[in-house]
Amino acid sequence: MRFVHDNLPQRVCFGSGEAAASLQREIANLNTSRVMVIAAEAEKDLAEGITKSLPIAIWHDDVVMHVPVPVAEHAREAAATANADVLVSVGGGSTTGLAKAVAMTTGLPVVAVPTTYAGSEATPVWGLTEGARKTTGIDPVVLPKVIVYDAALTLSLPVPMSVASGLNALAHCVDSMWAPNADPINAAFAAEGIRSLAEGLPRVVADPFDLDGREHALYAAYLSATAFASAGSGLHHKICHVLGGAYNLPHAQTHAVVLPYVLAFNAPAAPEAERRMAQAFGASRAIDGLQDLRRELDAPRALADYGFTEDAIPAAAEAILPAVPPTNPRPVTGQDLRRLLRAAWSGADPREKS
Amino acid sequence: MRFVHDNLPQRVCFGSGEAAASLQREIANLNTSRVMVIAAEAEKDLAEGITKSLPIAIWHDDVVMHVPVPVAEHAREAAATANADVLVSVGGGSTTGLAKAVAMTTGLPVVAVPTTYAGSEATPVWGLTEGARKTTGIDPVVLPKVIVYDAALTLSLPVPMSVASGLNALAHCVDSMWAPNADPINAAFAAEGIRSLAEGLPRVVADPFDLDGREHALYAAYLSATAFASAGSGLHHKICHVLGGAYNLPHAQTHAVVLPYVLAFNAPAAPEAERRMAQAFGASRAIDGLQDLRRELDAPRALADYGFTEDAIPAAAEAILPAVPPTNPRPVTGQDLRRLLRAAWSGADPREKS
Repeated sequence: MRFVHDNLPQRVCFGSGEAAASLQREIANLNTSRVMVIAAEAEKDLAEGITKSLPIAIWHDDVVMHVPVPVAEHAREAAATANADVLVSVGGGSTTGLAKAVAMTTGLPVVAVPTTYAGSEATPVWGLTEGARKTTGIDPVVLPKVIVYDAALTLSLPVPMSVASGLNALAHCVDSMWAPNADPINAAFAAEGIRSLAEGLPRVVADPFDLDGREHALYAAYLSATAFASAGSGLHHKICHVLGGAYNLPHAQTHAVVLPYVLAFNAPAAPEAERRMAQAFGASRAIDGLQDLRRELDAPRALADYGFTEDAIPAAAEAILPAVPPTNPRPVTGQDLRRLLRAAWSGADPREKS
Repeated sequence: MRFVHDNLPQRVCFGSGEAAASLQREIANLNTSRVMVIAAEAEKDLAEGITKSLPIAIWHDDVVMHVPVPVAEHAREAAATANADVLVSVGGGSTTGLAKAVAMTTGLPVVAVPTTYAGSEATPVWGLTEGARKTTGIDPVVLPKVIVYDAALTLSLPVPMSVASGLNALAHCVDSMWAPNADPINAAFAAEGIRSLAEGLPRVVADPFDLDGREHALYAAYLSATAFASAGSGLHHKICHVLGGAYNLPHAQTHAVVLPYVLAFNAPAAPEAERRMAQAFGASRAIDGLQDLRRELDAPRALADYGFTEDAIPAAAEAILPAVPPTNPRPVTGQDLRRLLRAAWSGADPREKS
């Protein structure tokens, strides 16, 4: 047992239907009185409902996916003009990301109210895009001071997006088990996240208005992001990063398809992780638990369904190989990657030896 | 699911045989150059061995149990005279406690190197005694900035003290499950702590030099303290606090004896906690897991063995009743407490209905 683990300062307020009350209390606790609310047009009604009692200085709805630099600049100018002293973001990953971009240059505290399972609210990672180029970094100042989790705000998240977002969170948990900075604390969060997703997601699919199911998924999103931000990117995320960048495959679906193949590949070489994940899934083997869950959620099955072609496999394997973390529990060869990608391309059973 | 959870900023460095290297790195990271080493005479050799490369301004060995106010004052003056800019504590709870007392008035950062499973290093709780009166409080400034866990430093902790200290940590975990601020995050830490103690303590008893066993126990001490500091005192700690204060019973033994009776009382009314603890113990019921572990450790059995008398039961129950947390999962009557204390006094099987 050998690790260095940084616990980051953050307050987590969790309670369904309590976002308005929590926000009022936390804004007062922070001794702030000029709130900039950041919420996309689509979330405007929702954001208005929970910020009624706040001392709002300005509303800002210019939110764009992946936080383009001009969009960040616009928000920073708006914050300065309004003399805002705190940022309240209401929305998914892009909205939280915009608040972080403002915090980065202004030092203003962020209170994040997430409405998806993206998890950005629990990490000090920021991201900005300039044209097609994405830059990311880590800065403690962008970590939201407070997260307000209210599962009632997620009831309108459509089932397919909930499943995609939830499986993305699950991939964070699984990959945290063997990522470069994996440690027992991250593993405990990740195992708890797997348990909570395996409990919550099927209930959300069965009934999108199942508040208890939504709470489990939202709580798991927090855990998965906390574990992943500390553990770093493992084999799974390195593979998906290359596939997403070079082949323009959809983010969430790529993660959902690739995850079982990485799990089946790594788990035999990581017995402690396997034991913990199996227990969290409530299955005799982690891969069985994951496949049962994927079946229940009608999860994406094959990369071929999203435009990835068989002839792209060799080049993709070439591109992934140098990115494989040296700490991966099992050595990875080019042949291993070609086999893995072929199976993921065709949607073969990951439990079969190919 | 409804909670507010504060994550506190702290760096945890874990590695056997790495204390010297970790200290050197972390003291440099903190930009400090005048170290005050706080270590009792008994830990002097151990402390010298790991602080050789540090820029030491002063050594301080006037450490006394429960941190009497004059002892705290002495240490504060020593820090001021030496113009120290960082405190490095090497020792058990009293040593960490003294460093906290200095931090409280000076704001100096603390780097804690624990040599027992007391867990004080992971909490913002300080304690001072004036005569027989103990005052405790919470102040973020006393939370050590860095913890350096090195299980090699705990190899000389005698087995009986290891067991007592370990069962004290176990009580923190169990009580965190239903304490006033119990929440799922605390429960995850507590479950991980139970798992790690149930793995480590029997190995320490079988072989005090089993480094892997020591690592499990030390890691669990961290988890238990983190969970307990956040969750607060539950029924178990309220009972032990009264017994310790009014009847002068030994701290660790009292905890070891009382814990199974509180667990047997509360668990049927806390099914989720019961499920998690049973799983962590690897037993069909949590109480079976605890009793198996206690047997393996030859743990203290009955309050009668420590001077508690049968005729003290009614008054003790009276004294405990007003301290029972209103949030306890099961209502507690005076009769319940008398039954529980009688069973703990005699060492009866906690699984038997009395």
